[in-house]
Parts: sequence; C-alpha cells; structure tokens
Amino acid sequence: MDAQVEGAYGVIENGAVMIKGDTIVWLGKESELPEFDALSIPVTSAKDAWLTPGLIDCHTHILFAGSRAEEFEKRLNGVSYQEIAEQGGGIATTVKATRQASKETLFVAAKSRLNALLREGVTTVESKSGYGLDTDTELKLLEVNQILDEHHPIQIQSTFLGAHALPPEFKGNSDGYIDLVCDEMLPLVAERNLADAVDVFCENVGFSHAQTKRVFERATELGLKVKCHAEQLSNQHGTELVAEFNGLSADHIEYLDERGVEAMAKSGTVAVILPGAFYFLRETQHPPIELLRDHGVPIAIASDFNPGTAPLCSLRLMLNMACTLFKMTPEEALLGATRHAAKALGLDDRGVLKVGCKADIAMWQIQHPAELSYQFGVNDLLNLWISGRLIQ
Amino acid sequence: MDAQVEGAYGVIENGAVMIKGDTIVWLGKESELPEFDALSIPVTSAKDAWLTPGLIDCHTHILFAGSRAEEFEKRLNGVSYQEIAEQGGGIATTVKATRQASKETLFVAAKSRLNALLREGVTTVESKSGYGLDTDTELKLLEVNQILDEHHPIQIQSTFLGAHALPPEFKGNSDGYIDLVCDEMLPLVAERNLADAVDVFCENVGFSHAQTKRVFERATELGLKVKCHAEQLSNQHGTELVAEFNGLSADHIEYLDERGVEAMAKSGTVAVILPGAFYFLRETQHPPIELLRDHGVPIAIASDFNPGTAPLCSLRLMLNMACTLFKMTPEEALLGATRHAAKALGLDDRGVLKVGCKADIAMWQIQHPAELSYQFGVNDLLNLWISGRLIQ
Ligand SMILES: [Zn+2]
Ligand SMILES: [Zn+2]
Repeated sequence: MDAQVEGAYGVIENGAVMIKGDTIVWLGKESELPEFDALSIPVTSAKDAWLTPGLIDCHTHILFAGSRAEEFEKRLNGVSYQEIAEQGGGIATTVKATRQASKETLFVAAKSRLNALLREGVTTVESKSGYGLDTDTELKLLEVNQILDEHHPIQIQSTFLGAHALPPEFKGNSDGYIDLVCDEMLPLVAERNLADAVDVFCENVGFSHAQTKRVFERATELGLKVKCHAEQLSNQHGTELVAEFNGLSADHIEYLDERGVEAMAKSGTVAVILPGAFYFLRETQHPPIELLRDHGVPIAIASDFNPGTAPLCSLRLMLNMACTLFKMTPEEALLGATRHAAKALGLDDRGVLKVGCKADIAMWQIQHPAELSYQFGVNDLLNLWISGRLIQ
Repeated sequence: MDAQVEGAYGVIENGAVMIKGDTIVWLGKESELPEFDALSIPVTSAKDAWLTPGLIDCHTHILFAGSRAEEFEKRLNGVSYQEIAEQGGGIATTVKATRQASKETLFVAAKSRLNALLREGVTTVESKSGYGLDTDTELKLLEVNQILDEHHPIQIQSTFLGAHALPPEFKGNSDGYIDLVCDEMLPLVAERNLADAVDVFCENVGFSHAQTKRVFERATELGLKVKCHAEQLSNQHGTELVAEFNGLSADHIEYLDERGVEAMAKSGTVAVILPGAFYFLRETQHPPIELLRDHGVPIAIASDFNPGTAPLCSLRLMLNMACTLFKMTPEEALLGATRHAAKALGLDDRGVLKVGCKADIAMWQIQHPAELSYQFGVNDLLNLWISGRLIQ
C-alpha cells in the first residue's frame, strides 16, 4: 500500500489479509504476518495496490421491467409531465410492465444491473420492491430478491417498499392502499421471511406522515426494521418519525432540518445521500451535510438506481457526485459506500476490513484512495472477493 | 429494430447491413437484402437490437501521467486553489509527471482509458497532446498517439495542443512560449505528420486572442486544420477567431454570444459541448444550445476526459449529462456522439451508417435509441465492429 495518507482512512501500509472460509482471520502489516498453514488460509498481499472493503449500495430499485427512456425524450422535446401522466406515463408505466413481467424477466434485468455494480467492486446491494403495488407482484419481486441472492455473487438485502406509490386501483383512496399494505402485504412478507426491512416513500407526492407511521407500527409489531424515503422534495418530518422507530436510515433528506438531524443522531439512524436522483431531477436544495457532520450522524451514499428518477446504475459515479455536488470529502464518500452503508443496512459483519468480518474485499490499482471518488470510468478494480471467494 | 420512433433518428426497421472489408456496402430492410456471396460479405441483421454508428469522442486529453486525486481531496478538506498552486499543484503536477513518464507508461495509461471508452461502443477517439509543454514531450505524446492508433482497436485522431498552458520555464513570458510553439513545435509536428489538427486553449487563464491567432496562422501556413478551447470561462471571442480560419470546432463555449454562433454557422464550425467539465467545475453558465439550434450549428458532445477538470472517462455519461444538464434531446445527443463528432474531426467517412462509410458499428440491446442517453451504467453493448472487424 501507499505511504502518502497519514491518519486518514485507517490505512495499513504494506498490509496483508488472511481469509479462512468466508471470514477475515487476520490483517496487518505483511512483515508481521503470523505463521500459518499456507494451504488452508489464502493470504492477500496488497503490494502496489489498495484493499478496501467491498462496496455496498444500500439503496436501489433494481427490480423493474420496461424503460422510461421514451418519456425522457418526450419531456426534452417539450411534452409536459402533466401530459405524460395523462397518457398513463410516469411510475404507472413501470408498474404496468413489472406486473406483466415474469420472475425470469425480472431476474435477467436485475442481473444485468447487478453485473454493472459488481464490475465496480460492489459486493452487497440493497434491493427494494415497490413497482408491483399489489400483493402478488410485491411478493414476486421479493422472491426475485431471494433468487438473485442465491444465483448472483452479489449479496442481496431485501426491502419491502409496498408503500412506494399509489396504484391506479386505489386512486383517491390512499388510506385504503395503506390498509392493504398493513393488513395483507406486511403479514405475508413477515411470515414468508421475504424482507430484511420495510421502507415507505413519505412525501407530499407520496404517503403522509400519518400513513407512514401506520406502516412503521405494523412492521415493528411484525419484528421488521424500518427505513424511510424522507424529505426529498419537502419537509414532512419523516426522518423524525423513522428515528422514533429506531429506524435504519432516512434516505434523500435534502429538505431535512436540524431537529431531524438531532433525532437521527439520538437514534443512530444513518443518513443515506442519493446524489444520482438530485442530479437527474436537477434539484438545487442540498442535503444538510454540515449539520450531519456536526451532529455525528453517519452518512452513507447510494445509487438509488431506478427507472424514473435515477437511471444511473453506478455507485462509483455516486462517490464522485457526492464530492462534486455536495462537497463531501473522498474519505467520507468511501465510508459512505462501505462502513456507513453497512450500518444503514443494519449489518455489522461487513463494510470494514476487520478480523471476524466477512471477507468482502476489493483490490484496486490506484495510488491513493481519493482516486476512488475522483477518477471515474477507467477500470481500476484488480480483484474482488465476496465471502472469501475470488469473483474477479 | 423497433417501430416506435417515427421520423426521428433516420431509423430503418428490420434492417440489415452488409460489410465488405472495412466498408459498408449495403444497408436497408432485411427483406430487401440483395443476393450476395454469403461467404465474402458478412451481413449483420439487427433483429431485436439496434445498430448505430460507432460512437466518436471528439475531444479528450487521455495522454498524461500521474493523478490529481490528492489535490481534489485537499480542496474538499478546505485547502484553497491558491495554496495548492503554491505547492506546485494543478496542471504543473500533471506536466511534471508527464515529462518524466516513458512512452510505455503513457501508452499503458492511455490504453486503460481507451478500453473504458471501447466498452461503451466508442470506435474513434480524438487525443490531444498538451501536458508536455516542451518540444520533446509534446512530440513524445503525439508519437504515443501513433502507437495507440496502431496497437489499440480504437481509431485515434491526433491533435497538437502545445498551447494548452504556460510551462513553468516561461513564467511571465507567454509570448516567448508562443514563439516556441510556432517556430519550433509546429514545424516539427507538420514535418513528421504527427497531428491531424492544432488546438489552442484561448481563455483569460490561458492564451490570449492575439496569441491564439498567431498559432492558427502558423498552423494554417503548415497546412494543419485548427480548433479551439473557447469561451469556457469568459468570452474571449476565440470562437469567431477559429471560425475565421474555417476551423473544425469551437469547444466548451459556455460564454459564447450570438455573434460567435453566427460566425460558426457561416464557417461550418462544429460546437463541441463538454458537460463533464461543466459538471465537475460546478459551472452555472450553460452553452447557448438554443442559439446553436436556431442557427443550424451542428453540436457534438465529448468527454473532455482529463486529469484536472473532467476526470470522467465515459462518453455515454456525457450523453446523459447533455440531456440532463443542458436539456439537449436524446436524438441530438446521439448525433453529437456520431455524425456531428465526425464532422468536428473533419472526417466524412464515419459517424453515420451509409454505403461507402467505414463499417464502424455498435449493436445495442435496447428497445429505443433514447435509452443510449437515458440509462447509464448497465452494459447494453452487444457487439462492436471497427473498420468491419468484430471487436467485441
Ligand atoms: Zn429510492
Ligand atoms: Zn479540453
């Protein structure tokens, strides 16, 4: 490794890592490597390269069918959002295509998205349902998460986001839809063990604070952790709410105020920053990075990859955007895609190179870890291990 | 191909292409495919996929050594540009590393950048010198362009950008450096046939209008075409100047006014839009897209990949940024990376699928060409041909 960084990043120079099975069993300076059975414990020496934890994308919507590229083109040719919505466009397009899609179709589409992330050094991906909006399709999506977790090298964390948008069948009856989410979907999700967490889109164009609270109460009763799409377009105090429920994370939070930040600090809720949606929606209100720093709230960074508002399937680009758009430091960005992203998923077995943690490790051909947030596009991933297995 | 686009893009549905050697010899509807000798003329049928011309990145700085990631990190940790410059940072860092680098080192670094572009469907790349700033290193860089053109599948167009920045040896004597460019470098570049064009960075922090004019005059005398980094940070009327010389392109042009646009329209000079630098520098002044449209000026889009102000090595991302940041349409973006990019390089043998053109062809797994500017990151390139040869 490199000697230029002092103090930052917790660097071990001239380091080596010992892996046994899927676990890191030793790490330190190569010169201090203990005696070991060379046949049973592979050692990864980081000569002239850098090792980091495998990257973690803790907020994605990779489970969908269809494309909204043509709507994008229409809008750029002057057709209004209103007209597109009247033609059945927007999220309705994706919901329609996703309901019609088979599990195989959804698996193949999601796999190509996971492959894009894998090529960048990502080893764990959170994947939300939310384009089904009926019981069958929401369960189908969560089942595809299980299949992806089994059949793709990337480790999947599954999130139930039934309360993502109002389906057309419930137009004018959002409380009725929340009844369905709470009374039918959530119990099935819990019973079948299909999700690691439950998410709600709490927004003036989504579900209200009261509706979000109902979903969180039901999820909590069923033993499921909660998280929230909060304060993206306005301050609905969804962040304070998710903090009250000791939620995992509040995500987006461009419009979050100091009271909300204080609530997160108290509950240990992670701030998940999503610069791809900010960029793509041409937003101007920045998330309160300074306040989050001041209050010691851990900040994660994720792609939010989705078919409508963040069609950028790249976590590495998000590191650059977090620095460029929000003036986060490269060290914060890297923590945001490793340690803090693991915390946002409630996982304490990864996101850091430490004895006892999963051997999810990326080896980079870089001179300095700041390059991970600086240069984009050129392939600098030399090797990737997931659970101790060399993937590429 | 797909039936959803009407009129736009010049689409041929259910199309096929015949290639002989490096050239397109026929294209049209597969049903109208003429009789042919199947052994000598491969046919590419575009079933369920789209064919476009290979993409062209008409403005890059891929020839450099070293990294400025640590400066990026310092700036984001509050160190001022001023302090970094005093520590010998900025472009001086890159010039120092590039002067010290061997041709092999520069070749290997540039190859990894070209590989990134190739994976996205890019078949021609313009590559500028400009981090040598002394005669030996500038010539060395242009020689690396020749080696890249021979040893990498991507076709290189070589540009001499000696007048990129003032080297430390000429501090306070920019006219003296322009003497060196005009009297020593340019004649050698022309004599050794090392460049397809000559570029100048005309800016208040670069070279003046008068200095730019001197370089253009000398280049023209030597039979070399000219282009210009113009109006990026202020209006120096570099665009009018390059138009006077019937220049290939004016690049950046955020601060261009209508007089400049009119001059381009008259001379047939292409507007090269560089959204990556705009994004990375957090600029707010947009290039005059509407005026360029109104006056019928062809607009190209390029990565401007460079170590200081545009560390994003992706042309596909630039298509998205052109639409997202500058509200160009996906069709304009695709034209900007094909037909208009070819024109910006003075090439009439590529950038369009047409009988007699080079068989530089990308095959995409997409439903609609707008996807090329919309979704980013997921690999949608099925096949790529360069000069009729299947590359991937
Ligand atoms: Zn989201
Ligand atoms: Zn440039």
